[in-house]
Amino acid sequence: MQFHHHGYVSGDPRVQNPAGTGVERPSELPKEMDILVVGSGPAGMLLSAQLSQFPELTTRIIERREGRLPLGQADGIQPRSVETFQAFGFAERIVAEAYNIAYMNFWSPDPENPQNIVRTARTEDYAFKISEFPHLIVNQARVLDYFAEAAAEGPGRIIPDYGVEFLGLTVHEDGNYPVEVRVRYLTGERAGEERTVRAKYVAGCDGARSQVREAIGRKHVGAASLHAWGVMDVLVNTDFPDWRTKCAINSEAGNILHIPREGGYLSRMYIDLGEVSDDDNHRVRQTPIEAIIRKANDILHPYTLEVKQVAWHSVYEVGHRITDKFDDVPEGADREPRVFLTGDACHTHSAKAGQGMNVSMQDGFNLGWKLGKVLTGQSPKSLLATYSAERQPVAQQLIDFDREWSSLMARKPEEISDPQELATYYLATAEFPSGFMTQYGPSMITATDIHQDLAAGYPLGKRFKSAEVVRVGDGNTIQLGHHAKADGRWRIYAFADASAAGDASELAALAEWLSSPESPVSRFTPSGADSDAVFDVKVIYQQRFEQVDISKVPKVFLPQTGALGLTDWEKVYAAGPSAWMGSDIFEEREISRGGAIVVVRPDQYVAAIMPLSARGELTEFFAQSMTAQP
Amino acid sequence: MQFHHHGYVSGDPRVQNPAGTGVERPSELPKEMDILVVGSGPAGMLLSAQLSQFPELTTRIIERREGRLPLGQADGIQPRSVETFQAFGFAERIVAEAYNIAYMNFWSPDPENPQNIVRTARTEDYAFKISEFPHLIVNQARVLDYFAEAAAEGPGRIIPDYGVEFLGLTVHEDGNYPVEVRVRYLTGERAGEERTVRAKYVAGCDGARSQVREAIGRKHVGAASLHAWGVMDVLVNTDFPDWRTKCAINSEAGNILHIPREGGYLSRMYIDLGEVSDDDNHRVRQTPIEAIIRKANDILHPYTLEVKQVAWHSVYEVGHRITDKFDDVPEGADREPRVFLTGDACHTHSAKAGQGMNVSMQDGFNLGWKLGKVLTGQSPKSLLATYSAERQPVAQQLIDFDREWSSLMARKPEEISDPQELATYYLATAEFPSGFMTQYGPSMITATDIHQDLAAGYPLGKRFKSAEVVRVGDGNTIQLGHHAKADGRWRIYAFADASAAGDASELAALAEWLSSPESPVSRFTPSGADSDAVFDVKVIYQQRFEQVDISKVPKVFLPQTGALGLTDWEKVYAAGPSAWMGSDIFEEREISRGGAIVVVRPDQYVAAIMPLSARGELTEFFAQSMTAQP
Ligand SMILES: Cc1cc2nc3c(=O)[nH]c(=O)nc-3n(C[C@H](O)[C@H](O)[C@H](O)COP(=O)(O)OP(=O)(O)OC[C@H]3O[C@@H](n4cnc5c(N)ncnc54)[C@H](O)[C@@H]3O)c2cc1C
Ligand SMILES: Cc1cc2nc3c(=O)[nH]c(=O)nc-3n(C[C@H](O)[C@H](O)[C@H](O)COP(=O)(O)OP(=O)(O)OC[C@H]3O[C@@H](n4cnc5c(N)ncnc54)[C@H](O)[C@@H]3O)c2cc1C
Repeated sequence: MQFHHHGYVSGDPRVQNPAGTGVERPSELPKEMDILVVGSGPAGMLLSAQLSQFPELTTRIIERREGRLPLGQADGIQPRSVETFQAFGFAERIVAEAYNIAYMNFWSPDPENPQNIVRTARTEDYAFKISEFPHLIVNQARVLDYFAEAAAEGPGRIIPDYGVEFLGLTVHEDGNYPVEVRVRYLTGERAGEERTVRAKYVAGCDGARSQVREAIGRKHVGAASLHAWGVMDVLVNTDFPDWRTKCAINSEAGNILHIPREGGYLSRMYIDLGEVSDDDNHRVRQTPIEAIIRKANDILHPYTLEVKQVAWHSVYEVGHRITDKFDDVPEGADREPRVFLTGDACHTHSAKAGQGMNVSMQDGFNLGWKLGKVLTGQSPKSLLATYSAERQPVAQQLIDFDREWSSLMARKPEEISDPQELATYYLATAEFPSGFMTQYGPSMITATDIHQDLAAGYPLGKRFKSAEVVRVGDGNTIQLGHHAKADGRWRIYAFADASAAGDASELAALAEWLSSPESPVSRFTPSGADSDAVFDVKVIYQQRFEQVDISKVPKVFLPQTGALGLTDWEKVYAAGPSAWMGSDIFEEREISRGGAIVVVRPDQYVAAIMPLSARGELTEFFAQSMTAQP
Repeated sequence: MQFHHHGYVSGDPRVQNPAGTGVERPSELPKEMDILVVGSGPAGMLLSAQLSQFPELTTRIIERREGRLPLGQADGIQPRSVETFQAFGFAERIVAEAYNIAYMNFWSPDPENPQNIVRTARTEDYAFKISEFPHLIVNQARVLDYFAEAAAEGPGRIIPDYGVEFLGLTVHEDGNYPVEVRVRYLTGERAGEERTVRAKYVAGCDGARSQVREAIGRKHVGAASLHAWGVMDVLVNTDFPDWRTKCAINSEAGNILHIPREGGYLSRMYIDLGEVSDDDNHRVRQTPIEAIIRKANDILHPYTLEVKQVAWHSVYEVGHRITDKFDDVPEGADREPRVFLTGDACHTHSAKAGQGMNVSMQDGFNLGWKLGKVLTGQSPKSLLATYSAERQPVAQQLIDFDREWSSLMARKPEEISDPQELATYYLATAEFPSGFMTQYGPSMITATDIHQDLAAGYPLGKRFKSAEVVRVGDGNTIQLGHHAKADGRWRIYAFADASAAGDASELAALAEWLSSPESPVSRFTPSGADSDAVFDVKVIYQQRFEQVDISKVPKVFLPQTGALGLTDWEKVYAAGPSAWMGSDIFEEREISRGGAIVVVRPDQYVAAIMPLSARGELTEFFAQSMTAQP
């Protein structure tokens, strides 16, 4: 965590100084704003936290609810989401309070005595095999609390306008604020009042029944399956020995997905309520909690649940729906988007693969920096078209996966030939539910893979996977990826060739060029701004840190910034082993010993890989999505 | 973190429900109180955080300052203190914001060119070699903030009464509230007003010029040395390459102890101002900051500091003073103590060994639970005499160490024969500054070491050193010691013999006895209270966790507690390796394969080691410091 940069800070360093529109943020929703976010679910809250890092902009978020979400909804947090929390500054806090999934167990009918269930397999959870972060279970409400804090404590000081409902919108062809939005106050002094406000852009983060989606006339395609599930968060006493372990339970009486929750006592159970007849007309949703508990007991036989408290419960039918496009631009039309859809507003799926909240947050992460860049004049408007282009295929992939997983989970015992099959499928597909299978194709912000072999461990278009390095200034072992905060900046990692710091080398030549007026760093950073305001440029030497003489490291990696012009000592790293680190990022990520440039997007995806000698290629890459600055 | 135990909690689980005196805590200092804490430094704030866990008691803390400490003072945090923060619930947060010491470097005059300094040694910091926690540097102000939060969010809801000064006290021979205390309001409506309040006990946590110490007439012995140091927290630009590394710099022009601070930019420098003449009369304390900076530049030659901002600075003369006794009972007298001294109020030393804040906190940790136990009727008053008896020798040991370290640091180059000597001394004595050398002798709360060989890795009287185990209920790897929160409870760890759970064994017999009315657990826990209210009893099996059938584990390790009578699943552990853990606590801590009982005090010190067959011995041990409960 870096702070005291503009002078000594006495209090909590997580609270950033207010700036721009955050300095005297009006409590009332203004008439005109840059961005209106509709809905404060995971997508909307992440988007607000991100936009709080762009305090030049007026961002407001309206929410129908009267206040914070108290309970219910999603609880499964993928490692990719924990990485994201890290970028927003609260990973260590939420990890400390969440349930950490270490194993997933599988239960099936006892072959000897099929009315009883027996444990048939234990599988290690995938998270630690593919990430330095765990796979967590924690209430969506707490995730939203942390993002709300990040939004409120970022320089933009963004706080949701609760009790304000979105009614509809019209996108006008011109004007500074072309989107006209109708809202209604639901609480407070103005309760009942309708108002019209204007925004440059609107993000529809308003969930499965999205009225923003309706307002832009997008088609939401797919169907509810004919299978219903009850879900309950319960405090119980039980003789079921895996009460604190995630389990898939497959019994003669039906199926349960059992997920222990944070805090050591609570668990969530998804209980199979079976096929729903064609003419049910959602009557299944009226299933009383007593019936769900009874069913759970039937499935768990010979074990029993004595339910002491039901914290939350619900019944739903599995639905898979996806919107044809995630913005308001008609297919084939040539204008820039003005309205975006994120999260459940454009894709819904069953809860049990634990995807909903996670994918919704990544929608927000993808959209946030793009809006920030365009509205601050750093990028052309065309950047905004990449949002739908990138996220729609991810949602489709998710739905395909979820459909397969849901139907595997809902099988009857007689349909299962090999009891290990579910466990095997679970492990084989782990990269997906962990959130790491997303891979963006080539575009203005993702280069082609012609230089992929220079850094084979950083697949282009996938998220930049962290690894340990040593910070030269102090010898600390650092996760390189964790230094990349969600601050809207591009990152350029210069993995050095084998020469030592100070010697003439490809790296030294690159550094010199990066400092020159022709480089993209100079061209796309406004004059007068800190030299690292737009690009965060770091170097990783191959040597042990003791062998890197920091006084010989090129100045572009030791910029002097901020009001006091202080040297930033945290951009120079070493890959060689140290007393506290045995690994070598060059080996772990298969980086060429001749060096490589790895460019990473503000949302942490690998954008480009190039040789250290790249000049025109690097400039051209950035010129596609960035505007030269005066 | 365990919560939802008494029903679903929607908000931040770190905020505990208010109870007892915390439910409607008056904002005004009451006339009578159980405990009055004087001073909100590290000792007083830790004490308050601890006593917030005893909401039956009325605890108040007065502080002369108008509000929180904004800056300055101590910044070095030993691993032992980080362990303590863990017990109070904020280790992961403060680690995330602190500077982590990985190395300490040593600089000396260049033999070729003695007016220049050169780096002569790098030593790895000791922390990770002897603890799972780092050695941190972070402002005392932030440590106090976190303890203030723990005090305010504990069930007792303790908040300092700022702007209230302690003036004096009289200990009366009788009455329910025998200590009469005079205070004065310094701010607010009552500014200037003097008042008399009454307390059962007073803790003097009022720093080096303690008026509580004066009021009880204790002798503070020792002297200031004739050596002065300047200290400054500064933001600079410099060509000194170790600006971000802790260094001892020994040059012809004098000495510097250089300590990088949290946030990546700030550092603290202790600058040797040389010998002070006998008749200086503290004039050295007027040394202007410009002179200190000039001196720093002289010492650093050929490197230079360009100071951009001085966040804080001070000049002090090294003093070593210790109070003859840490409570108000005259030597040889037979009454119980009513007034205690902690921290700087009873021992002061130089800042550079980084001990002050750390040792002060451990004073508070030692005293807090004792006051809690006595005042809630769980322990006899005689327990309180152990505070001075235990902490006075620790302070003496500290002063001896500090005197040696300070004079080593202040030597002139010509006095140093081997430039590696300081580095060698630093490493050889690492256990001390890390906070792990404290070892309490036998007393009513620390048994003799006759069974030490049953668990050689847990030296009696030293702090219980954590190690990894697997939690049987969910397969998670857990630091056993981290489950021990600062909740005032005793801990009994039953390290099992080799038998499996469910088989007849020494462990099973112990478990049965612990559940019986004769056991200390039953005798010293009030009837009607939760069975784990006073003792937290845990078991560690030797097997792999998959081999421990939790349904066969004795019920004393799976207590049902709280309003809902919910099973606690977090007391049953396994030592065998798992997919996520390779170590074995029996080997790491040299525990007998025949099993052992390890008893740990509420302040985390090992109190007793006994065979699993111990019955009378265990009862007798607890009977010394606990009162049988109705
Ligand atoms: C009852 C329920 C249970 C769920 N259970 C699970 C689960 O167990 N596991 C799982 O993985 N996923 C679950 N989900 C799905 C998961 O919660 C979603 O995928 C995730 O919340 C999507 O995030 P989002 O930000 O897109 O939308 P949401 O979280 O739905 O947020 C939308 C927000 O917009 C607000 N809003 C809606 N309309 C308007 C309007 N017109 N004006 C103003 N505000 C509006 C809503 O009040 C809401 O706060 C559940 C969802 C629901 C609703
Ligand atoms: C200026 C200064 C610089 C220091 N620098 C370092 C350092 O660099 N490194 C290091 O390790 N240690 C340093 N120390 C020492 C370290 O801060 C102390 O060891 C530590 O703070 C001791 O904690 P404490 O709780 O015993 O007392 P303190 O932190 O001194 O707290 C005592 C509190 O009591 C209050 N108080 C005093 N008298 C009264 C009264 N009559 N009524 C009400 N309240 C009262 C004070 O305002 C203060 O808040 C420094 C101390 C000081 C004062």
